[in-house]
This record gives sequence, C-alpha cells and structure tokens, in this order.
Amino acid sequence: MELFYSKDIEGGICRLDQDESAHCIKVLRHRAGDEISVIDGCGTLYRCRISVDSPKGVEAMVISSEEGWGGHPYRLHMAVCPTKNNDRYEWFAEKACEIGLDEISPVIGEHSERRVFKTARVEKILVSAAKQSLKGAVPAVNEPVSVKEFILEQGERSFADAQDDKRSASDRLLLIAYCFEDETVPRRSIKEVLSEHECKEIVVLIGPEGDFSRAEAELALSHGFIPVHLGDSRLRTETAALTAVSAVYFRHM
Amino acid sequence: MELFYSKDIEGGICRLDQDESAHCIKVLRHRAGDEISVIDGCGTLYRCRISVDSPKGVEAMVISSEEGWGGHPYRLHMAVCPTKNNDRYEWFAEKACEIGLDEISPVIGEHSERRVFKTARVEKILVSAAKQSLKGAVPAVNEPVSVKEFILEQGERSFADAQDDKRSASDRLLLIAYCFEDETVPRRSIKEVLSEHECKEIVVLIGPEGDFSRAEAELALSHGFIPVHLGDSRLRTETAALTAVSAVYFRHM
Repeated sequence: MELFYSKDIEGGICRLDQDESAHCIKVLRHRAGDEISVIDGCGTLYRCRISVDSPKGVEAMVISSEEGWGGHPYRLHMAVCPTKNNDRYEWFAEKACEIGLDEISPVIGEHSERRVFKTARVEKILVSAAKQSLKGAVPAVNEPVSVKEFILEQGERSFADAQDDKRSASDRLLLIAYCFEDETVPRRSIKEVLSEHECKEIVVLIGPEGDFSRAEAELALSHGFIPVHLGDSRLRTETAALTAVSAVYFRHM
Repeated sequence: MELFYSKDIEGGICRLDQDESAHCIKVLRHRAGDEISVIDGCGTLYRCRISVDSPKGVEAMVISSEEGWGGHPYRLHMAVCPTKNNDRYEWFAEKACEIGLDEISPVIGEHSERRVFKTARVEKILVSAAKQSLKGAVPAVNEPVSVKEFILEQGERSFADAQDDKRSASDRLLLIAYCFEDETVPRRSIKEVLSEHECKEIVVLIGPEGDFSRAEAELALSHGFIPVHLGDSRLRTETAALTAVSAVYFRHM
C-alpha cells in the first residue's frame, strides 16, 4: 500500500508538497482521476482522487477519511539522550515508530558527550517510517532540552493534572531507567512496574552512555518518576530506548 | 570494562590473534604483567596476566575463570530471512546479541528477494556486540539454508528429543511468525504463547519482506511450529525479529 504525506489538507482538498508530488507523478506515474491514500501525520488516513497531476504540486479531492488509522492503545513519550553516533539515534527513532511511539524528546544529561541534535533529520526519518509501517500519525520530535528541564516540565504537568478534577496525576506514568544501584530506592523491572499501572500515557526517560548523574536521578524521583531497570543485559542507549518501547508495546498486547 | 576475545585458550595459556594483540598493545598500551579480561565466546570470562606483550601475538597466563558469564536464563535460536539491505540484518544481529541471543540461522524463503548472506561479516559484528555488552558467549551464526530445510531439521530434532527419554519434545518451543491470516489455524500473540510454556529453549522463525508462502507455513505447523503474531504494528523483517527477541527477554525478566 503506497502512502503519501501531506500537512495541507483542508476544505476537501489535499495538496502534496514538491517531493511527494514528484514521487507521485514522475516515479509512480499517477494521473488525474487516480485514487491515492494520504496520511496527515495526525492519525487520519484520507482516500483522495487526483485532480491536478503536476509533478510540482499535486492536488486531490478527498473522497473519504479514517481517524485513528494505524494507531496504538497508549500514548508513549520517549525522552532519550543523544547517542555519540547520530545513526544510532535515527535507527532508534525509525524502529520505535514502527513499533508504536507518539513523541520523542532529545534530552541532554550532565554526563552526555553529545549535546547537539538534528531535529529536522529525525522528523524526516519518522515520516518515512510512519508511511512504511502504515500509521496515520507521525511521532512528534521536540527541540532538545536538558534532562533537568525535562523532569521539571513533566513534574509540573503531573501537578497541573492533579489540580485538574477531570484527570488525576496517576493518568500519566513517568519512568526513568538508570543503571547505577541506588541503596535508598531499589529499582524494579519496567515489566513489573508497567503491569501494575493502567495508565495509557507513559513517559520514559533514558540516559546517555555515561548514565544519569545522581542529581538527575534524585530530581526525577522527587518529581514523580518511578525508577526502573531493563533487565540484566547491558544495553546501549538506543537499544535500551527501543527495549522500553517494546516493553510498553507488549504491556498493551 | 575492556574485553578481549580469544578462541585459543588452553593449558592455562591464552593467546590473542593479531587484531586483538595490536589493539591490546598498540592502542591500549598494555605491557607484560598487566591483567586483562578475555572471553572465549563460549560463555567463560578469563582473568589473565600478560606474559608476552607482542603486538603480533599476545600471550597471557590464566589467573581465574568464570563460566556462564553475562548469560541469560534461556536459549534463543532466531531463524530470520535475509533483508534486502544487509545493514538491517547486521543491525538486528548486533541488537539481538545485546538483548540476549544464542544462535542465528539465515533462512531463504520462497518469497525471499535476497538469497545471499555474508556469514563472516555477521560473526564479526556479533563478537564486538558480545564484548560491548559484556557477554561471555558469542551467538553462533549458521550457513544459510532454505526455510523448508530449516523446518524439517527442527522437526526432526524435536522428534529425536521425544524419543530420548531424558528430554521431551516440549523442552523446545518452536514458533513461526507470519502475517497472513490463516482461517484454519488462528495465530495468537507471541506474548500469550510464551507465557503458556516453561521451556527454556526457543526457536523463532521470521519470514522475508514478502512473508512466508502458505506451503512454508503449513510445513512448519505440521512439524510442531506454533503460529504467532507480533501485535498490530506492521514491522519490517529486522524489527519483527528484534521484537521477538524482546518478547523472549521480557518473558524471562
């Protein structure tokens, strides 16, 4: 099934950008009258009929639409420190999107060697991964923030939720996976912690090669994060992150 | 922790090959008298003291050894069809080794586009992955066989096990993950099937981009393979394979 991606769908008209248009007309040789499938990246699949078959800008009429197409029964936000090697992060983003992911936050830890992150590149990879794995929604990628900023932000959100009578803080599960043994707060496996909670909204914080600092871990715990481990294997940052994505996927399987 | 790999450990003497020796002496600047850690790739970690510090061939005296070092509580054999793109298979091999894997069989399906496989390259990747993830055992890589040969071979092994009064066929769990819906034999999730079996020895068969043929699936079922699915997400071959590795990892977590 061939999918196109467009952010420009309104009033029953769908427009493809130049790349998608060129692919649609020059490569796949679609012509006016042909039906195509388009995702808006927000979870909806549109069936459209091409009205303008220009390789510079395809226009198509929306015939039908399907919300929540190719979705999953939870909302997963992965906050992962950049890896020394970009490819490894991009690989993680692609695979996590295939399995089931909603949002990525690159976070810079005190022990992070790499402190730059190419948001645009990862966004591109996520669009093709979503098309490839037949998902209507493309995961969001945030601009990098420090681990501490991220923790404070998430803590405040949970606090706000708790104030809001419609939702309780427990509607969101905040997890942090670090490697060092903490005498005061023993970590349990992510599998065990996930199995004890019903929440559909999960945030997982994964540290850099050098792990989180004690201060970062303490801040997370004091802001409602539950410490977890990912089992006995020693995993690279990107493998740990994908293993957490799989744990959430299996929890809801 | 810096690990070296050697297949030449006997009589209390450990010899490193030329690559490992050069890395040990030229890069890490070890000298006679230094202690190094060496894995034999079969599950044992050796502490050794360097006696000959030649960059062409290091010799070291074994001080102590630890069997089953960095092991996992199951035996997993993944039979995975080659991916169109080699990198994707090599990526799977590396990640699967980090998480926990014992044996890889490249298998060629009737719908396989790619029919060649570079065993030596994957072996190299597995050695560095095992060193990187602190495992004493390096997963074995078999020469490619057809999916049907593999199924017959596994079926015969289970039959032989059943004859052998020491073990029963149920000591091994044979799983096949295919995508098409089979009216006659409904597939259940790999998580559900794994949870119902205690066996520590698991074989998982993962098909090519074009999926298994009906004939291959039927042959597998008639030889004791249980059909499973990997959830609702549409996964690439290498992602499906790694997801199965994670399912087994979480089953024993």
